[in-house]
Amino acid sequence: MDRIPILRMGEFLLVTIQVDMHDQLAMTLQDDLAERISATSAKAVLIDISALDMVDSFIGRMIGTISGLSRIMDAETVVVGMQPAVAITLVELGLELPGVSTALNVERGMQLLRARVAAQ
Amino acid sequence: MDRIPILRMGEFLLVTIQVDMHDQLAMTLQDDLAERISATSAKAVLIDISALDMVDSFIGRMIGTISGLSRIMDAETVVVGMQPAVAITLVELGLELPGVSTALNVERGMQLLRARVAAQ
Repeated sequence: MDRIPILRMGEFLLVTIQVDMHDQLAMTLQDDLAERISATSAKAVLIDISALDMVDSFIGRMIGTISGLSRIMDAETVVVGMQPAVAITLVELGLELPGVSTALNVERGMQLLRARVAAQ
Repeated sequence: MDRIPILRMGEFLLVTIQVDMHDQLAMTLQDDLAERISATSAKAVLIDISALDMVDSFIGRMIGTISGLSRIMDAETVVVGMQPAVAITLVELGLELPGVSTALNVERGMQLLRARVAAQ
């Protein structure tokens, strides 16, 4: 497992995080995402974290970094499927992910994004 | 990592396989899929295997089982993102996945499925 797949869904990119992230994997994901946003002119990145039962500050910071990266490339970031315990941990860690939208699941995340794109 | 997330995308379910499958994980995935197809009346299951560099007969059989399971629940199975080396291995293993459609990536897989649903 040396990279996390990035799936294109129309104007959006979908990343499903299932495995423990380590430095190299996170760096590769950020590089790959920057390249894919540029290549596809994606409007948004959906990060599905429903498989994660717990997060640490490393994952929290990685989501923050991806969000910042997307923003300067004119794409939004939506984190979907966050489990309640994960939300509590992120807040306790002081990682409140400013500028990152959240949605209950991928489908609702896509509805949210489509509504925003339509409103533009 | 005790289960692989199943994402709902409209009428379709998306499963991204990123990690090495072992018996328990494969059984859980099959049970979860059967339950989700029934609960959501999904028309199709997309299995993204773009993260897999290699497959063994265990994974090949698992895809075959998921396909059979979907079929009796009136859903199609589309395997997307298969790398050339993986295709060669599957054929060499004699696992030609009858009844399973394939597509280059998730987006083309969804186009294929939408066209089929529209033609019904």
